Amino acid sequence: KKQYRIAVIPGDGIGKEVIPEGLRVLEAAAKKHGVSVHFDHFDFASWDYYEKHGEMMPEDWKAKIGKHDAIYFGAVGWPAKIPDHISLWGSLIKFRREFDQYVNLRPVRLMPGVPSPLANRKPGDIDFWVVRENTEGEYSSVGGRMFPDTDREFVTQQTVMTRTGVDRILKFAFDLAQSRPKKHLTSATKSNGISITMPYWDERVEAMAKKYPGVKWDKYHIDILTANFVLHPDWFDVVVGSNLFGDILSDLGPACTGTIGIAPSGNINPEGNFPSVFEPVHGSAPDIAGQGIANPIGMIWSGAMMLEHLGEKQAAAAIVGAIERTLGERTLRTRDLGGNADTTACGKAVAEMV
Amino acid sequence: KKQYRIAVIPGDGIGKEVIPEGLRVLEAAAKKHGVSVHFDHFDFASWDYYEKHGEMMPEDWKAKIGKHDAIYFGAVGWPAKIPDHISLWGSLIKFRREFDQYVNLRPVRLMPGVPSPLANRKPGDIDFWVVRENTEGEYSSVGGRMFPDTDREFVTQQTVMTRTGVDRILKFAFDLAQSRPKKHLTSATKSNGISITMPYWDERVEAMAKKYPGVKWDKYHIDILTANFVLHPDWFDVVVGSNLFGDILSDLGPACTGTIGIAPSGNINPEGNFPSVFEPVHGSAPDIAGQGIANPIGMIWSGAMMLEHLGEKQAAAAIVGAIERTLGERTLRTRDLGGNADTTACGKAVAEMV
Ligand SMILES: CC(C)[C@H](C(=O)O)[C@@H](O)C(=O)O
Ligand SMILES: CC(C)[C@H](C(=O)O)[C@@H](O)C(=O)O
Repeated sequence: KKQYRIAVIPGDGIGKEVIPEGLRVLEAAAKKHGVSVHFDHFDFASWDYYEKHGEMMPEDWKAKIGKHDAIYFGAVGWPAKIPDHISLWGSLIKFRREFDQYVNLRPVRLMPGVPSPLANRKPGDIDFWVVRENTEGEYSSVGGRMFPDTDREFVTQQTVMTRTGVDRILKFAFDLAQSRPKKHLTSATKSNGISITMPYWDERVEAMAKKYPGVKWDKYHIDILTANFVLHPDWFDVVVGSNLFGDILSDLGPACTGTIGIAPSGNINPEGNFPSVFEPVHGSAPDIAGQGIANPIGMIWSGAMMLEHLGEKQAAAAIVGAIERTLGERTLRTRDLGGNADTTACGKAVAEMV
Repeated sequence: KKQYRIAVIPGDGIGKEVIPEGLRVLEAAAKKHGVSVHFDHFDFASWDYYEKHGEMMPEDWKAKIGKHDAIYFGAVGWPAKIPDHISLWGSLIKFRREFDQYVNLRPVRLMPGVPSPLANRKPGDIDFWVVRENTEGEYSSVGGRMFPDTDREFVTQQTVMTRTGVDRILKFAFDLAQSRPKKHLTSATKSNGISITMPYWDERVEAMAKKYPGVKWDKYHIDILTANFVLHPDWFDVVVGSNLFGDILSDLGPACTGTIGIAPSGNINPEGNFPSVFEPVHGSAPDIAGQGIANPIGMIWSGAMMLEHLGEKQAAAAIVGAIERTLGERTLRTRDLGGNADTTACGKAVAEMV
C-alpha cells in the first residue's frame, strides 16, 4: 500500500499556526480511512529562513521537495520585513513556474453557518470552481522602464499568452465542467478593451469548446463578470480566467461566500510530473500572527483538496464534511466568524468530526 | 449669460431610448435653474451609421463635435452586428484618446429604494467615487502574435504607463479626495504579481501623496480590493485605479449598490481642452432594446454629472435629488428595479421632481 510523502512548509505568520491544525485533521482523516501519509517538515520559504540565510530557499530546494507527492504550504510574505518580489517570487511563484503548476484551483462554496455578505443566499446557492491560469499571462517578467526620472519616463510590461499555456488551462477547465452535473463553463475575458491577448483567449476558448459538445459555455467581460459574482453567484459552475482575472475572481468569489479566511487552493500540475502545492487563500496575515486566533479552516480544507488530488476521495470528503458540520454547529468557530474559539480548539473540533 | 452647446449622440440600442428621457430631465432642470442649454443631435457612433457609411463616424467628426461644451452619449456597441473593435474602438475609445479624456469618473452610491445585493446596507453606507485612468495602461495597442497556428504560437500585449499619464490621474484623484469630508484615497494595485508596471504605479502614488499631507491614503491589491468592495464598501471614499482596474471596480461598485442599470459616468478632460463625454455605465443592452423598458436613470444621472462638470452645481444637485426621490418613492420604477413603469414614465417622473 502506497505511503504518500508530503512536504510541509509552514512559511510565515499565521502559516505557522494553521499548519499544525491542518496536519491534525489530515492525520485523523488518514487514520480513519486507512490512508498512509508521511510528513517531512521544511523551514524555508519564510522570512525566518531568509533572515538566517539571505535567501528564501536553499539552492537544492528542488532536490529537497521535488520528489514529494505534494506540498502542504501555510503562507509566505511579510511586506513590512521583506519585499514581495523577494518573498513571493522567491518561493510561491517559483513553485508555480518551476513545478509547472499551471492550474490554480479554488472552490467558491457557501458553507453552512457562515454568514454571506450577500443578502438572501443560503448554502447550496453558491457552489462553483474558479480555474486560474497560473504560470503566464499578466504575471510576466518581460518589460522595463525608459527615461527614468524625467517627464518622458514610461514603463511597459507584457502580458504573454502561449498556445500551450492557454490550451492546457482551458482543457483542464472544460474537463472539470464536463465532470460536473451542470456541465457549464464561463470564460472571463476583456476582449473589448484588451485588444490583442484577450481576443486570442476568446479564440482558443471557442476552439476548445468544439471538443466538448456536452458542455454549455459562455463568456463575460471581467468588469461585468465581477458584478455578476455579486448579483448572480448562482449562475456559475466552472469559471476559467487568465492569471490576473483568475486571481481577482478567486478572492472575490470567496468574499461573496462570507470570508476569504476559510478558502483553500491548489496549485496543481495535473500531469503529476512535479508536486502540487496546497495552501489556504488567506496569506500570512501579519496583523493577527502570533495570537493563536487565526482560522485554520482554509488550511484544513486545503488538506482535503490535497487528498482529493492524490486520489483519496473518501478521506477528502470526510474532511469537507467535518468542516461543514463544525461550521454549521457554530460552537467552535474562530473570532473572524463571530465565535471565540482559538486556532487549536477549532482544529481539534474538525479533527474530532472527521 | 453663457449658453452651453451640448452634442447629443444616442448611439445604439437602448441608448436611443434613454437619451430622450435624459434630455427631458436636463431641460426641466435647466429651465428651473436658469441654465441655458442648446442641444445638437448626431447620428454617428452607431451601428445604423456604420451600416449606411461603412465607418463609425464621419472623417470630420472632430470638427463636428470638438468645440461643444460636452457630449451627452447614450451607448455604443452591438456585438451580434458589428465587432467591438470596430464599434467601440471607432467611437467611445477614440473619444477617450483623441479628446484626452483621461479621467473616467463614476460614483458608487447606494440610493434610496434600490435593494442592495449586500446584506444590511442602507443608503448612506456606500458612497464613494471610482477614478479610473482612461487613456493608457492595459488598453494599449502595442503587441502582436508570432508563429500563428503552430504549437509555438504566442501573443503579447504591453501594458504602458507613462509618467504623464499616471501622475495626472493621481493628481485628479488626490484633489477629489482632498475636497471631500473624509479625505481618504485608496489606490488599486497588484504590485505583488504584476512586477513592473504596478510597482511603478505604487511609486507614483507615494510621490503624489507627499503633496497631499491632508489626505489619508492606503492601497490594496486588486484581488483583495474587490473582496473588500463586497465585505466593507463603507471603507471607501475615493478609489483610484489603472484603466483595467478602474474598469472592473466601476462595474463591481455599482453592482454592490444594487444595479449597474442606474450608474452614470463621465469621461473627462479636466483641462477643458476638449469636450468631455457623459454616458450611462449600462451600454446598449441589445437584449432589451426596442421595448421601451430600459431604465433611464443612468442616462439622467449622467446629465447631472455633466451639469456639475460645466459648473452648474445647483441644477446638477436638483437632478440627483429628483432621482433619489423618484427611486425612494418606489412608484415609478422600471422593471429591472421591480416596478412596471416604462422608460418614458420613469423619465417624466424624474423631470417632474426636479
Ligand atoms: C465597452 C468597453 C470597451 C468599456 C471599457 O472597458 O472601457 C466599458 O466597459 C466601459 O467601462 O466604459
Ligand atoms: C501573493 C500573490 C502574488 C498571489 C497571486 O497574485 O498570485 C496571491 O494573491 C494568490 O492568489 O495566490
